[in-house]
Amino acid sequence: MKIAIVQLNTVIGYYKYNTNKIIEYAEKAKEMDCDLVVFSEMAISGYPPRDLLEKRDFVDANLAALEKIVKNIKGIGVICGYVDKNISEIGNPLYNAAVLFENGKIIHKDYKRLLPTYDIFDESRYFEPGTDCSTFEYKGHKIGLTICEDAWNDKEIFKKRIYHVDPVAKMAEEGADLIINISASPFYDGKRAFKTNMLHAISKKYNVSFVYSNQVGGNDSILFDGSSMAFNASGKVAAEASDFEEDIICFDTKNGTGDIKSIPRTDADAIYRALVMGTRDYMTKCGFSKAVIGLSGGIDSALTACVAADALGSKNVFTVFMPSRYTSQNNFEDTRQLAENLGVRYHTIPIDKMFKEYLPYISPGFDEKNPGVTEQNIQARIRGTIVMAISNRDGSMVLSTGNKSESAVGYCTLYGDMNGGLAVISDVPKIRVYELSRFINETEEIIPQRIIDKAPSAELKPDQTDQDDLPSYDVLDAILKGYIEDLKSVDELVDMGYEKSVVMDIIKRVHRNEYKRQQAAPGLKVTSKAFGYGRRYPLAQKYMPE
Amino acid sequence: MKIAIVQLNTVIGYYKYNTNKIIEYAEKAKEMDCDLVVFSEMAISGYPPRDLLEKRDFVDANLAALEKIVKNIKGIGVICGYVDKNISEIGNPLYNAAVLFENGKIIHKDYKRLLPTYDIFDESRYFEPGTDCSTFEYKGHKIGLTICEDAWNDKEIFKKRIYHVDPVAKMAEEGADLIINISASPFYDGKRAFKTNMLHAISKKYNVSFVYSNQVGGNDSILFDGSSMAFNASGKVAAEASDFEEDIICFDTKNGTGDIKSIPRTDADAIYRALVMGTRDYMTKCGFSKAVIGLSGGIDSALTACVAADALGSKNVFTVFMPSRYTSQNNFEDTRQLAENLGVRYHTIPIDKMFKEYLPYISPGFDEKNPGVTEQNIQARIRGTIVMAISNRDGSMVLSTGNKSESAVGYCTLYGDMNGGLAVISDVPKIRVYELSRFINETEEIIPQRIIDKAPSAELKPDQTDQDDLPSYDVLDAILKGYIEDLKSVDELVDMGYEKSVVMDIIKRVHRNEYKRQQAAPGLKVTSKAFGYGRRYPLAQKYMPE
Repeated sequence: MKIAIVQLNTVIGYYKYNTNKIIEYAEKAKEMDCDLVVFSEMAISGYPPRDLLEKRDFVDANLAALEKIVKNIKGIGVICGYVDKNISEIGNPLYNAAVLFENGKIIHKDYKRLLPTYDIFDESRYFEPGTDCSTFEYKGHKIGLTICEDAWNDKEIFKKRIYHVDPVAKMAEEGADLIINISASPFYDGKRAFKTNMLHAISKKYNVSFVYSNQVGGNDSILFDGSSMAFNASGKVAAEASDFEEDIICFDTKNGTGDIKSIPRTDADAIYRALVMGTRDYMTKCGFSKAVIGLSGGIDSALTACVAADALGSKNVFTVFMPSRYTSQNNFEDTRQLAENLGVRYHTIPIDKMFKEYLPYISPGFDEKNPGVTEQNIQARIRGTIVMAISNRDGSMVLSTGNKSESAVGYCTLYGDMNGGLAVISDVPKIRVYELSRFINETEEIIPQRIIDKAPSAELKPDQTDQDDLPSYDVLDAILKGYIEDLKSVDELVDMGYEKSVVMDIIKRVHRNEYKRQQAAPGLKVTSKAFGYGRRYPLAQKYMPE
Repeated sequence: MKIAIVQLNTVIGYYKYNTNKIIEYAEKAKEMDCDLVVFSEMAISGYPPRDLLEKRDFVDANLAALEKIVKNIKGIGVICGYVDKNISEIGNPLYNAAVLFENGKIIHKDYKRLLPTYDIFDESRYFEPGTDCSTFEYKGHKIGLTICEDAWNDKEIFKKRIYHVDPVAKMAEEGADLIINISASPFYDGKRAFKTNMLHAISKKYNVSFVYSNQVGGNDSILFDGSSMAFNASGKVAAEASDFEEDIICFDTKNGTGDIKSIPRTDADAIYRALVMGTRDYMTKCGFSKAVIGLSGGIDSALTACVAADALGSKNVFTVFMPSRYTSQNNFEDTRQLAENLGVRYHTIPIDKMFKEYLPYISPGFDEKNPGVTEQNIQARIRGTIVMAISNRDGSMVLSTGNKSESAVGYCTLYGDMNGGLAVISDVPKIRVYELSRFINETEEIIPQRIIDKAPSAELKPDQTDQDDLPSYDVLDAILKGYIEDLKSVDELVDMGYEKSVVMDIIKRVHRNEYKRQQAAPGLKVTSKAFGYGRRYPLAQKYMPE
């Protein structure tokens, strides 16, 4: 059997668009002489629709869309994800469902058994788990049809399993020779390798072909990389789609071969492409084409501007430099040079006149040489007001420029530099910001070298640098990764070689600044644990590890 | 058996404080000659700790605290909620647990079977469900020990049940004569009556005594009303604690009588007390004693100031009036009069000088008579910057003043009037704002009558009123309640008597302004569906009901 594996960039709730895409790609699959085309999890509605699932009319529209594609696609088998209703009086009202149909007839249905409810996933909030793990016959194959998490409970891969059932093991036991998995599995740094190894191991262990179709595109914070694949029965990668863009690949179960579109990439390359896709998708799916970015002369806003220019085209990026009395002379030149290199618009709005008008009311005895947090924040908030005014005036979206390290320790001003519709690099730790900047400059100097070389500074008081307050970024980032991504305890962090006082100081800052992050713009998730939707902390709490 | 029912206002993760409270109240229960004292769900850690539960040391500290109270309380039986570990290799890592101990010995344990995963609840994210619904003997009673949701699946009360098991029914079948339920069940308008009727019906149907201990206090957005109760075996309310404060009441199973502390209250009274408690708790649990509030002369900021003065004491409330060129003369007088009536500090900071400094850069051709959204927002953001500067300077928390109706339709400025640590009335619809204001003025005029009577206006352009843009608030609030709380479809809203064009316009505004709400401060939840943590919508989506 020749199987087309499709990865679509759907828009949540945009049924007309999504169904037309599905029909269009089914036609392509037919042109490729395929017998079956496989779309990803909830391809009809887009994933994740979250509480839109609580609206009956949203679910009905998804069923109507399914009916439309069943009617409109002829001459090829189609597997597609959608949302089904649970008509029983007991249980959650919906199923996360997969359907196989051909020539107007539904041949088989399956309901997702394992419902991820951790990190950014809330599936137990909406769905009743399926209980049936049986296989079915189709075109000479005994097929096990699974949905995303259904394949993520192998006892040899996960020492501690969340779920009591392993659908793939059951299907293999029943004699499946082909496992199909339709997914909406988000990207993070390192996930592709993990996923490839896992699917390889499963396929090899059970001696089955494995077809994996994964959603592509950005939906708010969540970035789906696509990277759809097929493995032959000996566990070898037989087909591989590209990442971060729509694709269709073919896999032939007979000879176990298929299209290989993917090219090996560095981590930096993958993350950069993820950010570009996420920025483009968030903005266009929200109806924006233009962005405004405050450039400071620092590396964070420089990287953000590069991502924006790649995502939207230079002509759609407006940069604004907002110097104060504390801005160093270099930054006038460096920001202008960056804007020139990128070919983006550039404007200067000095903030000192506004700043002076606030001071008599707030800080009548203001000492220019030693501004406190109050006066520092006023400057950041004036800048935040200016970028928002430009956004309102031009119909553009503000992209905020803070990185993950500063968001973690609260080295940022709420309602100031945190202002924005999207926090492009808020899940990129500072050390990675440097790495991505060097990656951008690999073939030519886009980011002026001086921006990369200078000591990071908020420039809100004289001669300020980030390291006045914070440990060096390599130490900070390592502790933050340990604490936030790897859930390490204080003792474990100390055992990694960090001083206890430094560890405790950083953890305190992380807790103390939770409130800022809860009011932050959505940020593009590129690590295994980002701030935001997937990390839910109470604000009014007094826990402090010892 | 004499049972003391305790409702504590715990602080999440503040183990020392919570355990001392538990020990102290157990002593009180002994003084009241009780044989058993019942504390609420997860009383040891406080509820909900959310992702703190993912930290091993957080869970270990909770187990150490349990050990401490088991050791320290003698001479009385104690039922208490805590977090237990699931030591199996399979399943979620924790249990939401209840323990009965006496004189240093653990007598019985139960694990919560029904794990709410909807609205603000995420329990399937952390907990493995208990499967055992058996009863146990203690001091002459056959007891069924349940945890919150365990009692919320009665087939006669819920037509559509979420869960497949009804633990209370099973326990009754097994011959329980006493059901104990330890809860952390949040308040919303109307919930107390529903809860009382439900527990009455269950108690009567199974001919069992029913003891219900519920957490009290505010944790971020979530307000727990306490309102603990006991029912005798004929379903009569036999004991009833007060609401919105800590309490201990006694219930005697022998004669089916107990303490009745509660007094009947109007909805407005209950909601007002909920807001006061929620404001006080959020601020004190976050370490704040002082608040700053921008007064506009409108009813929303007036109500917020009243709540704050009641929550924190007048001397801890700083109000600031920030007039612009569009501010009407009445508001100078009305805000001052309100501050005087409340006995709170009052300061005036005009914003026109700052405003003028932004205009040349943003809107060089600015027409004072007809400011657009850009210039209107600049004014709101200057005010937002001023209140935040006062907050930074004085170490106070900004309380934002927007109501639910305006938050729903986006009639507010992000990074402007939305600035704040807590959005006190953001779940109070405008019509209810009026009701609460009249309630406050019942015995004497605290809120100047003119504030209540004037037409609502943002005063960001000449002669502006809310109704320039919006339908009347009774229509708006009814449609919003239908759409957001009751999940009604367009057709159902039209059937309620509203014009389709008005309904569609409002729904569009609700969708379009989701991004503002996702960056809003936490708001105190007083309805069955508040914006914020319990309502999770994607931003980049294109669904629009028809």
